[in-house]
Amino acid sequence: MSPTPTPQQQRSRETRRSLLDAALTILTREGLRGTSVSAVAAEAGVSRGAAQHHFPTRDALIEATVTQFYADLTQQLRTAVAQLPPGPGGAPVSDVVTLVVESFSSGSFRAALHVWSAAAGPEGELRDLIVAADTRFAREVYQLLAITLDADLTDRHTRRLLRTTIDLARGLGLGAVLVDNTEHRVTTTATWTAILDAGITRNG
Amino acid sequence: MSPTPTPQQQRSRETRRSLLDAALTILTREGLRGTSVSAVAAEAGVSRGAAQHHFPTRDALIEATVTQFYADLTQQLRTAVAQLPPGPGGAPVSDVVTLVVESFSSGSFRAALHVWSAAAGPEGELRDLIVAADTRFAREVYQLLAITLDADLTDRHTRRLLRTTIDLARGLGLGAVLVDNTEHRVTTTATWTAILDAGITRNG
Repeated sequence: MSPTPTPQQQRSRETRRSLLDAALTILTREGLRGTSVSAVAAEAGVSRGAAQHHFPTRDALIEATVTQFYADLTQQLRTAVAQLPPGPGGAPVSDVVTLVVESFSSGSFRAALHVWSAAAGPEGELRDLIVAADTRFAREVYQLLAITLDADLTDRHTRRLLRTTIDLARGLGLGAVLVDNTEHRVTTTATWTAILDAGITRNG
Repeated sequence: MSPTPTPQQQRSRETRRSLLDAALTILTREGLRGTSVSAVAAEAGVSRGAAQHHFPTRDALIEATVTQFYADLTQQLRTAVAQLPPGPGGAPVSDVVTLVVESFSSGSFRAALHVWSAAAGPEGELRDLIVAADTRFAREVYQLLAITLDADLTDRHTRRLLRTTIDLARGLGLGAVLVDNTEHRVTTTATWTAILDAGITRNG
């Protein structure tokens, strides 16, 4: 790849990105069933031919959309965590827990639920992709939690509390798919923050 | 309704029940998309006409299946909790937490995920049904937890810990849909049991 993309390469990347954004929008709104290459092309304002140049099949489109979704989620979380005020014992626990919980409750997580549902269905193909992407994301969240909280990972209880944070965030995220549970999320985040803060061992 | 059902009424109830069981099997295995009245009739070994007598539409069938699923889940949990050894401070916390976590991780919860995904989709009709059934189930679990643990519900922190148990169980259940997370569930249940046991206030 050349260091500076040509205008044509640049346009091609933009088209790809707008197709992925459109696919996520449709996936969130209508589920996997309503997500076709032509519907996505229409949503993105791209010709069907151009869309098929990037994604010859619906599966290729869904796969790229899921991958991009998790990559974006990871990037957003990293950026947000990097902006937290550093403290002597790491960032404030409540801020970190809030960021993690909210990353599992974003509007786009509804898209993830649709994909999960499809992955749990008879077509096992998507399943490996989702499991791998979700495992990678959980590992990333775990490491971000450990670093920002300055957690001592040689301590077994600390490791378990960090993992439990992710399970809890996932449960709250699932709850957020059907109803607005914002108030409940805030309360539960506060409850869990106190438990985590008191329970983990910190380095140094 | 007569106190003793006639043989015909009895047969009709059995047919209805076997249709609902077959619908849950198909829903779990193939998702909402593969669940039709005729597929369910075939799975149950019932004629299509007889199936349509009980469930004139696919929506009616899905609705009854979801309702029955939550009713069975509630009944199973109640029965299991009733069999726990009673102690001076209520049943052992680990037993109760395990029962709750496992009720959200049953194989049939995959069916629930499919229905949730559909409910989060463009057809909002199923949504109210699921939200109501799920809210009822969560309330039931909360009350079972409170009673068996002899929890003091006037204490705010205790109420929050009971609710967090449900969020965590839901997160672990979602994790169980795609991979076998049994070992992780056992560890997390133990971690949470210790937190809950130390954190709740008990009556008397």
